[in-house]
Amino acid sequence: MKKILLSGVKPTGRPHIGNYFGAMKQFVELLSSGDYDCHIFIADYHALNLLQNATEMRQNILDLAIDYLAIGLDPHKATLFKQSDVSAHTELAWIFDTLVTMPYLMRAHAYKDAEAKNREINVGTFNYPVLMAADILLYDTDVVPVGQDQKQHVEYARDIAQKFNNTFGNTFKEPEALIIESVATVPGTDGRKMSKSYGNTIPLFASRDEIAKAVMSIVTDSGSDIPANVYAIHKLFKPENELKDTYDANKGKYKVLKDALIEDIDSYISPLREIRSDIASDTEAVRQILIHGAEMARERANGKLNKVKNTIGVA
Amino acid sequence: MKKILLSGVKPTGRPHIGNYFGAMKQFVELLSSGDYDCHIFIADYHALNLLQNATEMRQNILDLAIDYLAIGLDPHKATLFKQSDVSAHTELAWIFDTLVTMPYLMRAHAYKDAEAKNREINVGTFNYPVLMAADILLYDTDVVPVGQDQKQHVEYARDIAQKFNNTFGNTFKEPEALIIESVATVPGTDGRKMSKSYGNTIPLFASRDEIAKAVMSIVTDSGSDIPANVYAIHKLFKPENELKDTYDANKGKYKVLKDALIEDIDSYISPLREIRSDIASDTEAVRQILIHGAEMARERANGKLNKVKNTIGVA
Repeated sequence: MKKILLSGVKPTGRPHIGNYFGAMKQFVELLSSGDYDCHIFIADYHALNLLQNATEMRQNILDLAIDYLAIGLDPHKATLFKQSDVSAHTELAWIFDTLVTMPYLMRAHAYKDAEAKNREINVGTFNYPVLMAADILLYDTDVVPVGQDQKQHVEYARDIAQKFNNTFGNTFKEPEALIIESVATVPGTDGRKMSKSYGNTIPLFASRDEIAKAVMSIVTDSGSDIPANVYAIHKLFKPENELKDTYDANKGKYKVLKDALIEDIDSYISPLREIRSDIASDTEAVRQILIHGAEMARERANGKLNKVKNTIGVA
Repeated sequence: MKKILLSGVKPTGRPHIGNYFGAMKQFVELLSSGDYDCHIFIADYHALNLLQNATEMRQNILDLAIDYLAIGLDPHKATLFKQSDVSAHTELAWIFDTLVTMPYLMRAHAYKDAEAKNREINVGTFNYPVLMAADILLYDTDVVPVGQDQKQHVEYARDIAQKFNNTFGNTFKEPEALIIESVATVPGTDGRKMSKSYGNTIPLFASRDEIAKAVMSIVTDSGSDIPANVYAIHKLFKPENELKDTYDANKGKYKVLKDALIEDIDSYISPLREIRSDIASDTEAVRQILIHGAEMARERANGKLNKVKNTIGVA
């Protein structure tokens, strides 16, 4: 039997090349390796903590499914589904809520950060490590691919599995984190880490015009031969040995170098963009993939939940 | 259309006569009035905060169903079901979790009490007003019968309905509390309020031996003509004008008075006890009532939840 891999992605907007080189690319390679039985869910109930607009939510969910299909997720090899289509996630989260204590959950990073900023967070943000534990444990997950900064999520799932097992007898497998190493920190157009919150992104499926606009806005320090921010992004798309001639021949010519970058990004992105456009032209087919994925996920999740309900004595 | 009434009862153990005269009796009268479309659920997912033992949980759930059927709940007139059989309760609770803030929920009585006692409460106890709001709002409930001390639960449901309606548009009806007036505060065998936590109870469906044992343990202050604690319980079972002769003729004769009380409690309880025993002899029929109730409840609850999911954009 293959090991079970589970991962959730929040539908909170268009992915940018920072997301792609940071995690998505490695993630799809992992799924395509054939080493794992993969369950990928669109974490819409987690996203509801951040996004309370039905039109955007609906669009983002569809877009996210299309994005992942476009970068190579094969729905015949991985189960792709929406979290909200499998009620067992929230039901198991409640069961876990009755087992974990307030002080334990208050030690989670997200809550401590919010408290430090004296911000009124909502209960769902506080409670999300418990829903995440339910997401993971419901599928007898072996591995959860995460970035370095997300290891705590898997720790919470392990703790909660132990807590349940100690209270009611052995029921849940303890999952392991599979750390996804970022290729590099992808710099944004202003030189800081590329991040939606900084407004310094280049969208992953950008049109040529969008690429041009983003590249033209890259901040350059006048005077230097090689514009550092342009070069840092450029080397993601072309090996440095191939870039050398261009940068040597065009010292200080920022416009020429930016044009070359636009060209190279567009060459890299345009095949992805075209695949995405094909997939997006048949949204009904995408919906069917999610419906089918939900059926598969429900079968597994409900089987596990029924065992849990029997174990705690409510069924 | 009849108004919708909803009530949940936690399966946390055998009811005593304090529960009966305090709320259960009036509650069943209300259900029998024919004025309401009644939904009564066994709040097993709330009870899980207190009871983490499968055997006891399973027994308590069955016992509670039998108790209510025995005191006159007619399953053809009211929908009787288990909370854990309708996954929409916990799913809607999560949706509400994403709308309410931590400071708001920290103002709830149960949390403040626990914090004042510096006790490590679990997240489910903290989060229970949200699950209770989901329990109530899922059925477009008009009225929730509660004791004076439980009015806050309905307030939370009203607040959360408003919060959701303001965020996403008009979706939930605001329920009203229907205050159940206790006949009297029922004293326990030690003179304090009858309460399981004081160990001073007389079980509602007690056998004659159990009644005798409980009555014999009633604390009497030697010297007084009329044993106050005996009399206070006695008048629940017989009008005071009928008691007068007995107490006048037996001043200071505690044994005689207690024997009379045993007799009167037993006369009152034995028909209930016999009905209960009949019902309990066919547990399969009781299970069928719960299964049928769950089907009815699910149909209504899932219809509402689907509308909610559409409203927030996840469906």
